[in-house]
Amino acid sequence: MRWSDLRTRIPRLDEAAMVHARNRQQQLTKPPGSLGRLEDVAVHLAGIQATPRPRVQRKVFLVMAGDHGVTAEGVSPYPSEVTAQMVLNFLRGGAAISVLARWQQARLWVVDVGVDADLPEHPGLWIEKVRRGTGNIAREPAMRREEAEAALDVGVRAVERAAAEAGMDVLVLGEMGIGNTTPATALAAVFTGQPVERLVGRGTGLDDAGLARKRAVIERALALHQPDPRDPVAVLAAVGGLEIAALAGAMLAAAARRVPVMLDGFIATAAALVATALAPRVRDYLIPGHRSAEGGHGLMLAHLGLEPLLQLGMRLGEGTGAAVALAVVEAACRLHNEMATFAEAGVSEAEA
Amino acid sequence: MRWSDLRTRIPRLDEAAMVHARNRQQQLTKPPGSLGRLEDVAVHLAGIQATPRPRVQRKVFLVMAGDHGVTAEGVSPYPSEVTAQMVLNFLRGGAAISVLARWQQARLWVVDVGVDADLPEHPGLWIEKVRRGTGNIAREPAMRREEAEAALDVGVRAVERAAAEAGMDVLVLGEMGIGNTTPATALAAVFTGQPVERLVGRGTGLDDAGLARKRAVIERALALHQPDPRDPVAVLAAVGGLEIAALAGAMLAAAARRVPVMLDGFIATAAALVATALAPRVRDYLIPGHRSAEGGHGLMLAHLGLEPLLQLGMRLGEGTGAAVALAVVEAACRLHNEMATFAEAGVSEAEA
Repeated sequence: MRWSDLRTRIPRLDEAAMVHARNRQQQLTKPPGSLGRLEDVAVHLAGIQATPRPRVQRKVFLVMAGDHGVTAEGVSPYPSEVTAQMVLNFLRGGAAISVLARWQQARLWVVDVGVDADLPEHPGLWIEKVRRGTGNIAREPAMRREEAEAALDVGVRAVERAAAEAGMDVLVLGEMGIGNTTPATALAAVFTGQPVERLVGRGTGLDDAGLARKRAVIERALALHQPDPRDPVAVLAAVGGLEIAALAGAMLAAAARRVPVMLDGFIATAAALVATALAPRVRDYLIPGHRSAEGGHGLMLAHLGLEPLLQLGMRLGEGTGAAVALAVVEAACRLHNEMATFAEAGVSEAEA
Repeated sequence: MRWSDLRTRIPRLDEAAMVHARNRQQQLTKPPGSLGRLEDVAVHLAGIQATPRPRVQRKVFLVMAGDHGVTAEGVSPYPSEVTAQMVLNFLRGGAAISVLARWQQARLWVVDVGVDADLPEHPGLWIEKVRRGTGNIAREPAMRREEAEAALDVGVRAVERAAAEAGMDVLVLGEMGIGNTTPATALAAVFTGQPVERLVGRGTGLDDAGLARKRAVIERALALHQPDPRDPVAVLAAVGGLEIAALAGAMLAAAARRVPVMLDGFIATAAALVATALAPRVRDYLIPGHRSAEGGHGLMLAHLGLEPLLQLGMRLGEGTGAAVALAVVEAACRLHNEMATFAEAGVSEAEA
């Protein structure tokens, strides 16, 4: 399946399953509504998976990696080489997302969508390089349109492959790409209509001068390419990223399969802006994991109408915020399925 | 050990362990500070456990149960019988806290501090009944001073017994007691100095008339007993609860053993106000799990200077908010211990 075929194949949430799930919540041995967001999450999962008894046992983490030509402009305190170094760290199990995947008993695969280095063969790494890093968006397009489409399709294939190999009740999407808050901010500006100033942040740790430089670079890129949000693929090609395109493709594919996507932070949400521009119904399949400490993430979530589960001041990326939030989702799902009803437990209900 | 012996036996947080832990966080393969609250939690655990590499593997959940004479005033939509019914539900594994304990692979014990029913023998239930329910605080003291002290000691013994049987790296404290938001609100008013109006909430689901009645009952109890916050045991005896006293005793005992206590919602935080009034240093051992949707819980946390990890609109009690938040704490601890350092992973650090 190609990304473009999926745009019209994303089903509506299953309203009947949601009604059944909401009814079940009312019968569980607790005051109605007393589990707060956890009840809403369980009902949402029911609508996504089209069953009143959803499950989140088979967990897949996919981390998309790519490099960014715009690092030449000094927009990150880390050198581009760190992208490849961190991919190796993922594979060896030492990165934050590796630790969280073990904790969650999830399968973790890294997808090389465009790292500017030759990575070794490894069972946890899928090499699907579209090109070696993007162009420097301050001076040239990030990629050609065909490359953006190919990167979207990398995301689609990754979801299909992971589902075939491991099954997939829930998907955590993460990314690695030194410099990628810069294209993510550009995408956010295009799709939310907010000024760069309100969206831009310090990324991995820029100082004031670096932040001002990054903002100017993004504004220059937008002025140069004049991306039109009505053509999301063109926007991706102009100011996006290879791993960001793959994330957007993966969101389309997961939604088409009725798999909930745990939404991570700034970069993943930029990808969600692309995915929902391509197919608005994707939004219904996103579970917003957390609000990042990075710049305008809250504005991006608000644009999508999503209220994050967690606000823990995280800004690491890799899918880490989504991975932590997955614990909340699992708790919600287990409570929904495993709690006794008033009738089963012989507990008196509230007096009218 | 009696509760009164513990007041002077609560150690300071281990500053050296916290410095070591903070240094380790700076060396892990992530931008400094990018794990936000998770970094702070790991450092806090290090200070509590007096080791730079804390752990939260051996998890104990203790649920204290007791009845409340004030239910005669119509302060809850549920009848008092539900306390005992819910204890049976805990033991059979059908309650929310039972589900979360299984999920967390925790040991769960229920302690009958004063349920007004004869409960069956069960390995998961410790019967330590101080009396069968409290007096109706709107008309009489909740209990005698000696009973309040005995209930504090029930909490101390429960922690000692659980630690002996299972080991204890972390403690989740919960409660069950129909009507117990009423004494908890009275305690909150005494210890925070806030007016009842700002603290009182709907509990398990009062309507407007019920809420007004509950507020009047609490104000009547406070006017009747005039509790003095400088004598916390007298406050407990006047307007407290048996399970609330046991929670406070358990907090003292956990702190004395350097065990972090996951703090749940409204009732548990009322107990924390008592415990910190008895021994201010207890506060350093509390990890605030969540902010409840119930009334003035946020004011109580603010009085203690605690910022909750989660805000999910939960208001179930039983320890459920603390149990969900424990997942965040476990994530923090695993990341702290299992992530590779820059040197170990051969990853370049940020440029100065």
